[in-house]
Amino acid sequence: MIIAYDGTKYFGWQRQNKQTDKTIQGKLENILTKMTGFNVEVTGSGRTDAGVHAIAQVAHFYAHTDMSPLEIQRYLNLYLPEDIAVKSVEEVGERFHARYLVKRKTYLYRIHTDEIHPVFERKYVYNLGQALDLDKMYEASRVLIGEHDFVALSTKSTKKSTVKRIDAIDFEQKEGELQIKITGSGFLYNMVRIIVGTLIEIGLEQRPVSDMKMILEKKDRTLAGPTAPAQGLCLYSVEYKDEI
Amino acid sequence: MIIAYDGTKYFGWQRQNKQTDKTIQGKLENILTKMTGFNVEVTGSGRTDAGVHAIAQVAHFYAHTDMSPLEIQRYLNLYLPEDIAVKSVEEVGERFHARYLVKRKTYLYRIHTDEIHPVFERKYVYNLGQALDLDKMYEASRVLIGEHDFVALSTKSTKKSTVKRIDAIDFEQKEGELQIKITGSGFLYNMVRIIVGTLIEIGLEQRPVSDMKMILEKKDRTLAGPTAPAQGLCLYSVEYKDEI
Repeated sequence: MIIAYDGTKYFGWQRQNKQTDKTIQGKLENILTKMTGFNVEVTGSGRTDAGVHAIAQVAHFYAHTDMSPLEIQRYLNLYLPEDIAVKSVEEVGERFHARYLVKRKTYLYRIHTDEIHPVFERKYVYNLGQALDLDKMYEASRVLIGEHDFVALSTKSTKKSTVKRIDAIDFEQKEGELQIKITGSGFLYNMVRIIVGTLIEIGLEQRPVSDMKMILEKKDRTLAGPTAPAQGLCLYSVEYKDEI
Repeated sequence: MIIAYDGTKYFGWQRQNKQTDKTIQGKLENILTKMTGFNVEVTGSGRTDAGVHAIAQVAHFYAHTDMSPLEIQRYLNLYLPEDIAVKSVEEVGERFHARYLVKRKTYLYRIHTDEIHPVFERKYVYNLGQALDLDKMYEASRVLIGEHDFVALSTKSTKKSTVKRIDAIDFEQKEGELQIKITGSGFLYNMVRIIVGTLIEIGLEQRPVSDMKMILEKKDRTLAGPTAPAQGLCLYSVEYKDEI
């Protein structure tokens, strides 16, 4: 299934023991468990942190049911709160796995650059309120394309490898807003937000374009910029390997 | 000044005696009064009801101050909550009046027509969740263009004349959403929402296209459709007479 959510009020995607109602995964599991009468576990393409949104999160689950995918979708949308919606449900082969078979993910980060605060989009953008030098940010972002050890641009986690591949970083200047889309094979904890936080410092001319290369080479988290706020981040799309 | 606001949490534009903090006008007046040390009264182009939004409400005020328009705007935006923003402030002649000199106003009404509920736009659309027959709605709307007695398409008020002029009703079909823009010389109480409520019944084929002409001619409110919800309505723009 493909799920959209406004993450503002949630502790993130991943179910937490006593707070199932405060996570997206928990909300979905509770409804599917009620629907089937069996304990249903929902597996997402990956977790999203507290306050992070999704336009198209992907998740799978096994369920014994006579209901069609459309009936399941309608049942879910009937019981889901207004800030979570299931956009589609389809039957997949036994071998499908929403996390293991991810080929690429794209995240969108929205920065409000206008001095006047955003009224209608306020929960979905980081309200920086200052203009950014897009040319400098673009130039700095080029050194990130390709396969690199992104340990300096992530928060320490238990993941074995910190080598990831970034395929594209695209910038789009809208009225009073800069949108950054980052596509890659996978992302370390806080990686997108730390990349964006570092690009913002470069765009504000608080540090030189060359810092990005230096940070990547030194592999030292303390050299990178701050973690940009969760509310500007949105899981935009997930692509899967052909074999499925 | 031009003001944008998300009306969700407010009792409407107009100040109410004991609830100044729950109205847009009250919020603006409280800040300007603190700023100048004098009692400042803010006059809008017209009131908007509880829950109705504005992209560009226009209002004027008199103030004794040495501050420039830009300084006033920044002061306001510093103290306004995140759901109200002053988009511009400019000095105007003594004869300017935000309400008396209105030439035309445009309202935008957004209807969510997709079955899947809207996650990110949910506070700014009416979640109808059903497809509408746009051709029928368009045809029905044509009889409203021009000068008519709109008493049947409004809620009784103390206004002397119920004759108004509608200049344009434009429809725009977006993905999963129908947007209706109505431009006119002025609007009676609930007029836009009752017109939209009636057009929706026609678009759902619950009543014939010809009903709109009949309602207008019979001048009987009970014949029209329901008042569409406030949250789908937004004051889009206000135009003024040349003389200012």
